Amino acid sequence: MRLTREQLIEAVSSQMPARRWQHTLGVMQSAIELAERYGADPQRAELAAIVHDVAKYWPVHRQAAVIAENGLNTDLLNYDAPLWHSEVGAHVAEQEYGIEDREVIDAIRYHTSGREEMTLLDKVVCLADYIEPGRDFPGVALIREKALLSLEEGLIAGFDSTIRVLLERGQTIFPTTVLARNDLLRQLATREQAAQTRPVTENKGG
Amino acid sequence: MRLTREQLIEAVSSQMPARRWQHTLGVMQSAIELAERYGADPQRAELAAIVHDVAKYWPVHRQAAVIAENGLNTDLLNYDAPLWHSEVGAHVAEQEYGIEDREVIDAIRYHTSGREEMTLLDKVVCLADYIEPGRDFPGVALIREKALLSLEEGLIAGFDSTIRVLLERGQTIFPTTVLARNDLLRQLATREQAAQTRPVTENKGG
Repeated sequence: MRLTREQLIEAVSSQMPARRWQHTLGVMQSAIELAERYGADPQRAELAAIVHDVAKYWPVHRQAAVIAENGLNTDLLNYDAPLWHSEVGAHVAEQEYGIEDREVIDAIRYHTSGREEMTLLDKVVCLADYIEPGRDFPGVALIREKALLSLEEGLIAGFDSTIRVLLERGQTIFPTTVLARNDLLRQLATREQAAQTRPVTENKGG
Repeated sequence: MRLTREQLIEAVSSQMPARRWQHTLGVMQSAIELAERYGADPQRAELAAIVHDVAKYWPVHRQAAVIAENGLNTDLLNYDAPLWHSEVGAHVAEQEYGIEDREVIDAIRYHTSGREEMTLLDKVVCLADYIEPGRDFPGVALIREKALLSLEEGLIAGFDSTIRVLLERGQTIFPTTVLARNDLLRQLATREQAAQTRPVTENKGG
């Protein structure tokens, strides 16, 4: 049984400190804006944004237990705990909130790590999480700038900043994020190549 | 039929510009030094160092053909060409120079990318390639410093610098390098943990 938007907001916001719920409100806003800009469905983008951090403040042992006990992606447990809440959030969305929209569930699941062949909705939610108005970290201005060019350029800048932080801190890098970034670079290159081989007249509006 | 050391040097050096052979001489020296410092076999380290860049100046289409036609790791062809010569070099070492020592061949194969569970010889040759006396790039001083602490810390600093360059250039990152770095970080953490749980008397020389 699917919860209403208001029930969802009540259920999710009660599981995190007020400051984090403010972040979620920002992601909802940015996800709607990016969806409108880049042709995704704003309602589905907002839905994924509402739920994306539901498990963020659960004790990590509870997050790990959900992953281990439900046959989810246990490889995540070999990596740092901040990666776990996305997988748990996708599970909660499906099992507790009755969300059946596979793309919404996946956008929650991959909002931190990204993945190869990200869907339009994956891209919108993941990038919104980087650039929502409340975010203030070194490099966020560049990501916001790139987000105006394309979802792909925004996300590459976002993943770049994440990888740089992990290098500085001497932490492991989740390989899926590297695969996601590689794939986005290839999507950009393919698009650029297509633009270059387009007949000249087309560029002149012909 | 295995070539002698002198025949090998002749065969390899003739396939690259003099400047690159100077680099190889540096890697031979550093590989011997690192082997002696960290308990690897200096002769095998030097052997891998002699051959490691044999294919570096082959035309890239020839490198790609060797990989494709001999059932080598074709995934490399999805990544930038500077990764290819290591795989080709390992093939040449085995097929043309009659080197049968599996660890020497692997040290050649993984000298650019690294891999999970690097052998002692892999580590020595890969790190020597980063720090040989002729190297002069931003960050090499830090890698040389870390190389005095351990092979693992030296290599992590090396891979960090490679990944930073790829981020700056907007190039794809070979996932195996990320897996190698993750594995080295875990090896360090395990060693540190073991050191901390050692009885106190041992630290006092008891």
